[in-house]
Amino acid sequence: MPQKQGNVLLLPSQPSIIANAAVVGKVEGEGPLAQEFDFCYPSDTINGMETWEKSESELHRDAVDRAIKKSGVLKKDIDIMFAGDLLNQCIGTTFGIMDFDIPFAGLFGACSTMAMALAMAGVFCDSGAAQYAVASASSHFCSAEKQFRFPLEYGGQRSPTAQRTVTGAGAAVMGAKTNAPFIEAVLFGKVQNYGITDAANMGAAMAPAAASTISDFLRDTNTKPEDYDIILTGDLGSVGSNLLKELLKTKHNFDISAIHNDCGLMIFEQQQDTHAGGSGCGCSASVFNSVILRRLGAGELKKVLLVGTGALMSPTSAQQKSPIPSVAHAVCVCSD
Amino acid sequence: MPQKQGNVLLLPSQPSIIANAAVVGKVEGEGPLAQEFDFCYPSDTINGMETWEKSESELHRDAVDRAIKKSGVLKKDIDIMFAGDLLNQCIGTTFGIMDFDIPFAGLFGACSTMAMALAMAGVFCDSGAAQYAVASASSHFCSAEKQFRFPLEYGGQRSPTAQRTVTGAGAAVMGAKTNAPFIEAVLFGKVQNYGITDAANMGAAMAPAAASTISDFLRDTNTKPEDYDIILTGDLGSVGSNLLKELLKTKHNFDISAIHNDCGLMIFEQQQDTHAGGSGCGCSASVFNSVILRRLGAGELKKVLLVGTGALMSPTSAQQKSPIPSVAHAVCVCSD
Repeated sequence: MPQKQGNVLLLPSQPSIIANAAVVGKVEGEGPLAQEFDFCYPSDTINGMETWEKSESELHRDAVDRAIKKSGVLKKDIDIMFAGDLLNQCIGTTFGIMDFDIPFAGLFGACSTMAMALAMAGVFCDSGAAQYAVASASSHFCSAEKQFRFPLEYGGQRSPTAQRTVTGAGAAVMGAKTNAPFIEAVLFGKVQNYGITDAANMGAAMAPAAASTISDFLRDTNTKPEDYDIILTGDLGSVGSNLLKELLKTKHNFDISAIHNDCGLMIFEQQQDTHAGGSGCGCSASVFNSVILRRLGAGELKKVLLVGTGALMSPTSAQQKSPIPSVAHAVCVCSD
Repeated sequence: MPQKQGNVLLLPSQPSIIANAAVVGKVEGEGPLAQEFDFCYPSDTINGMETWEKSESELHRDAVDRAIKKSGVLKKDIDIMFAGDLLNQCIGTTFGIMDFDIPFAGLFGACSTMAMALAMAGVFCDSGAAQYAVASASSHFCSAEKQFRFPLEYGGQRSPTAQRTVTGAGAAVMGAKTNAPFIEAVLFGKVQNYGITDAANMGAAMAPAAASTISDFLRDTNTKPEDYDIILTGDLGSVGSNLLKELLKTKHNFDISAIHNDCGLMIFEQQQDTHAGGSGCGCSASVFNSVILRRLGAGELKKVLLVGTGALMSPTSAQQKSPIPSVAHAVCVCSD
C-alpha cells in the first residue's frame, strides 16, 4: 500500500518492471543508442502505414506488443494500461492499443507521459488495484511536425533551441516484486508557469517543472543527488538541462551536475544536427525502456530517478500568446 | 485497499465525495437543470475571457475552486488532481488549474473523462495514495465546434444525430469515508471498435463501449439492473441511448430500460433544438456534480452507476477514414 511522505508516494511492495520494449525510427536508429532498441525501423513509415499518425499508432502497438510478449504475461491477466502521446485527442495511442482488449486509462502529460504512466502503474500494482499493469508512450517526428510546426514539405529552418521529436515508442509491463528493476517511489508534479512563451524553446519552459519536482523529491525522501546514479530528465535537451542545473543550484541548493543526464541528449549525437536534442513522449519512453532498464536490470545502475517533463501547451494556446505551463513527474527505480 | 473482482475494483473503504460543484453556460442555464448548478454564466464568454479556449479554462478553474472551497479542505492537503478535457493537448484543463499548486495528473478519455477521473480518485483515496483527491472535467460548445467541426460564423447545419457540446465544468473533492455519497466500486473500460465512421453520430460509436462496460460491471459484481436507481451514461444522447438498450438486451441479456438515463438527455429540453442531446466532457461532469450527487447526498437515490463514454477520435483520424473507437469507464456511487 502506497505510503505518503510529503508529496512523494513510497511503494513499499516495490513493484517490478517485468519486461520492457522500445522501438524507434530511422534517425534514432542512426544514433548512439541504436544497439539498445528492440527494433529500429528503416524509415519513418512504419510497417507500410499510409499516414504519419497511423505510423505512430503502429509504433505504439509494436512496443506494447513486444513488452507483453517478453513478459510472458497473458493479455487477459493485465488489469490496466496507462498510455498516452502528444497527438490531438491522443490518437497515436488509441489506434495503437485498441485491439489489445485490456482496460485502458488514457493519460495526457505531453513529454512527461512515460513517467506519469509508470507512476500510475506503480501505484496500482503497489495497492493491489492491478496485478499487472502496462505503461507506454509514443511520438513520431513527422506527425508532430505536421501538427505543431510546419508541413514537412515546407522545409522550415529550425531554431537552435528547438528539439527534434523522437520517432519512437516504449512500453513496460509491471507486476508484483520479482527481479530488478523495482519501482521504489513516485511523485506527481505540480504545474509550473514561469511565463515562457517561445514554443521553439521547450527546454526553458520545462526546466522549472523539473527543478520543482526534483527538489521536492529529494527533500521529501531526505536523499541527496549523490544517492542516485542518474537523475534522468526527459526531455529538456541542452538548453533546458543547463537551466535546470542552474535553477536547482541557485534556487533549491542542490547540485546535480555530476549525475544528471537527459533522454533528449542521450538519443542523438551532436553531428546528427538535431539542435538542442530529442523530445516527444517517445524520447524518454524509448530511452528509459531500453538502455536505462537494461543497465538497472544488470545491476550496473543501482538507483535512477526518472523525471518526465511535459510542456502543457498547444498551437492554439501559443497563437493566443498564452505562456507554456509545464509539469514533471518522477519515478525512482532501483536494482536492489 | 482496492479488491479486484473480475475487472471491477471494489473500494472497501468507500471514499466519500466531500464536495462538488458544477458551472455551466447560457444554453445549459436555460435547460431543465438550471436550478441544480452552482452558477449559470449569462453568455458563452466566461468572466470576460477573450477566447473560447480561455473561457473553457476559466469554467474549469471556477468549478474546481468552488468544489474545494465547499469541501473546506485546504489546497495544500489535496494530494492529487485528476482532470482533463477534449481540447487539443488538454489546454482547457491545464490553463484552468495551473495556479492551484496541487500535484496534477492529466487524463484523456474524451467524454468519459469525468468518470475516469472519479475512478482514479477513488482508487487513490481507497489505497491511501491520497488523503484528498480532486476529479474534474470541462468542455465548451464554442471551443469544441471550432476545433472539431466548423467555424461558428459559418452557421453549418447540424445532423439530426449530432449532439451539442455542453458548455460546463464539474469537479468533485474526494476523501476518506464520512458522509454520503460514497464510491463503492469502479471499472476501467476496454476500447471497443465497431467500425463506425460517422463523426456526426458519436452516440452510435460509443454505445458498444457503454454496453461492454455495463455488462462487465453487472456480471463482475453479480448485480442486476434493478439493483440500481439509475444507470447513467454520459453521453450517448438519444440515438446512442436507444442503441445501448438494444445492444444490452440482445447481446448481453440485460434490460436496463427502466432505470437508464443519459446526462446528454437530462441537460437539455427537446425544444432547445440540441438534436440528439448534450455531449462533451462537461456534460456528465456538470450533471453528475449537481443533481445526481445532490440526490445521492439526500438519500433520494441509493445507488447510481455512472458510465462515462468517450469517442477516441480526432478530426485527423476522421479525415483519414479511421473508425471511431470508444471507451466507457464506470463508477458506482451509493448513499448508504
